[in-house]
Amino acid sequence: MSERNRQVLLVETPKGKLGPEHFRLSEAAMPVPGKGEVLARVRYISLDAANRAWMQGATYRSAVEAGSVMAGGALAEIVASKAPGLRPGDLVFADTGWQDYAVLPAKRALKLPKLKPLTHLLSVYGIAGLTAYFGLLRAGRPKRGETVVVSAAAGSVGSLVGQIAKIKGCRAVGIAGGAEKCAWLTGELGFDAAVDYKAGPLFKSLKAAAPDGIDVYFDNVGGDILEACLFQMNQHGRIACCGAVSQYDGAPAPHGPRGVPGLIVVKRLTLQGFIVMDYAAERAKALKDLKSWVAAGKLKVREDIVDGLENAPGALIGLLAGENRGKRMVKVA
Amino acid sequence: MSERNRQVLLVETPKGKLGPEHFRLSEAAMPVPGKGEVLARVRYISLDAANRAWMQGATYRSAVEAGSVMAGGALAEIVASKAPGLRPGDLVFADTGWQDYAVLPAKRALKLPKLKPLTHLLSVYGIAGLTAYFGLLRAGRPKRGETVVVSAAAGSVGSLVGQIAKIKGCRAVGIAGGAEKCAWLTGELGFDAAVDYKAGPLFKSLKAAAPDGIDVYFDNVGGDILEACLFQMNQHGRIACCGAVSQYDGAPAPHGPRGVPGLIVVKRLTLQGFIVMDYAAERAKALKDLKSWVAAGKLKVREDIVDGLENAPGALIGLLAGENRGKRMVKVA
Repeated sequence: MSERNRQVLLVETPKGKLGPEHFRLSEAAMPVPGKGEVLARVRYISLDAANRAWMQGATYRSAVEAGSVMAGGALAEIVASKAPGLRPGDLVFADTGWQDYAVLPAKRALKLPKLKPLTHLLSVYGIAGLTAYFGLLRAGRPKRGETVVVSAAAGSVGSLVGQIAKIKGCRAVGIAGGAEKCAWLTGELGFDAAVDYKAGPLFKSLKAAAPDGIDVYFDNVGGDILEACLFQMNQHGRIACCGAVSQYDGAPAPHGPRGVPGLIVVKRLTLQGFIVMDYAAERAKALKDLKSWVAAGKLKVREDIVDGLENAPGALIGLLAGENRGKRMVKVA
Repeated sequence: MSERNRQVLLVETPKGKLGPEHFRLSEAAMPVPGKGEVLARVRYISLDAANRAWMQGATYRSAVEAGSVMAGGALAEIVASKAPGLRPGDLVFADTGWQDYAVLPAKRALKLPKLKPLTHLLSVYGIAGLTAYFGLLRAGRPKRGETVVVSAAAGSVGSLVGQIAKIKGCRAVGIAGGAEKCAWLTGELGFDAAVDYKAGPLFKSLKAAAPDGIDVYFDNVGGDILEACLFQMNQHGRIACCGAVSQYDGAPAPHGPRGVPGLIVVKRLTLQGFIVMDYAAERAKALKDLKSWVAAGKLKVREDIVDGLENAPGALIGLLAGENRGKRMVKVA
């Protein structure tokens, strides 16, 4: 245990776009667990657009401050424990931050089963899968035959949302950036249609892809795409508000989408914000469903694994630019 | 039946603020009911901010077109009937428009009980009362001890929302324009606090009136007031989207409130748009509750009755400027 602990620090809170200059690789002494704590070896770090939102201020967690280890959830293996219930070799999910090793209070570590591939614990059976599952089914409440539209559809959550919509008998429409991603959604993942928001104004292409209007919109991006969908929602439609990635990487938007609250009233829409933790009590049922769908080949899981802790900053910057397909994570060890 | 039928026409669709020049008093021949129709004598016309929204385009009803009789709901008495189920002397609620007499398909007329005062059929037992009831209880879902904030609180709906919130054991905060209205809310209607949005920036006064944050916001106005409330909502708060009166009388807003969807996600808010007709099936239960509260003196009903069909335009213009307190209606006959 004389090994040094590499850490990626957030050296400055970005005012505009996140860049490599906001991070620095550093080294610290190996941390030592105290009573009730564990020492965990970070294996895979989960990269999420929300990581960028955490730099903007307090959200559902406190802000990531300049000068501290960059925060982030990871799959980690216990190497030493001073807490009952966790033993060396156990796998956990925890906010370890971007580093080789972390000391954590045991109660902050969620023990996970060992399954293959391990990375599925960060994608379909992790926050991404559960977010897609609960957000669509609980906040979106799709009914058979309805049209479900999801933005950031080629991302970790969106790629699952569209497939779960299909499993539930809905028409699934994805909004993504670029023809290649769109072709992947319809060709590989079984989406009924895909709309390339980079190819021009969204209104007409969305209308063509969702000719009967939108019943459920799963919103990962906010901003102009939320606005475009608002105007094409059907009466009594539901918008599952999952994130606002269009608003994270830069200055806060000067204003919100038009049509709020006018369209919400006239169309009797429900907009519901949610965080996956809100549904923690129903996790077992969700995992059972997700596992059965993966086993049956109904849910295809795409993972985008970047190698090396030192590459985490670039991988997050790329994710915010939309270069990933499916769940992006960083293999640390 | 040789009497002439006075009508108020909308002569021009207003581009900006509604003014008297947009209306003209006219006369037409007495209409004659055909098979399945009734002739109704208009008694009291209901004035609502939504009347102005109808001029902007299709909403939950088709737009009111220039050159036609101004649309509006009214309490009317059947004077001739060629339809089964309705007889001379029966009272109905219907969209008669702004005129002395109207011919209507019988199925468009809702038969009402005769009660005293008759005007309560347009206020607490009419659309205003049911909107307050369903919007607060079904879309807002307040729990005992929570803080409920309502805008346009001195209006027909808002004045009831705050009182129903009190009946349900909540802290009731009203937002209204002017010290006099605010004093009325707290002094007469039993609101716990009132905030005068004309007295300066809303943020601080709202914070003082709702020190524990807002659990339910009943939104009648949209715009800046919705935005101010969004930022003070508590986690898992609910916003009942009833109307957007700040947006009706003039050009459409160039943008929506900030914080959408960011705050919706982070605070796990639910925004729900509704129209009172959505709850038609539960009308009887609602009326029973409202009647018992009025009888027990728990719900005070304020009506603002303007006399004369010819004064309807000025009364609506005044309502949009916030000059009414409680339910405004026009006595025609």
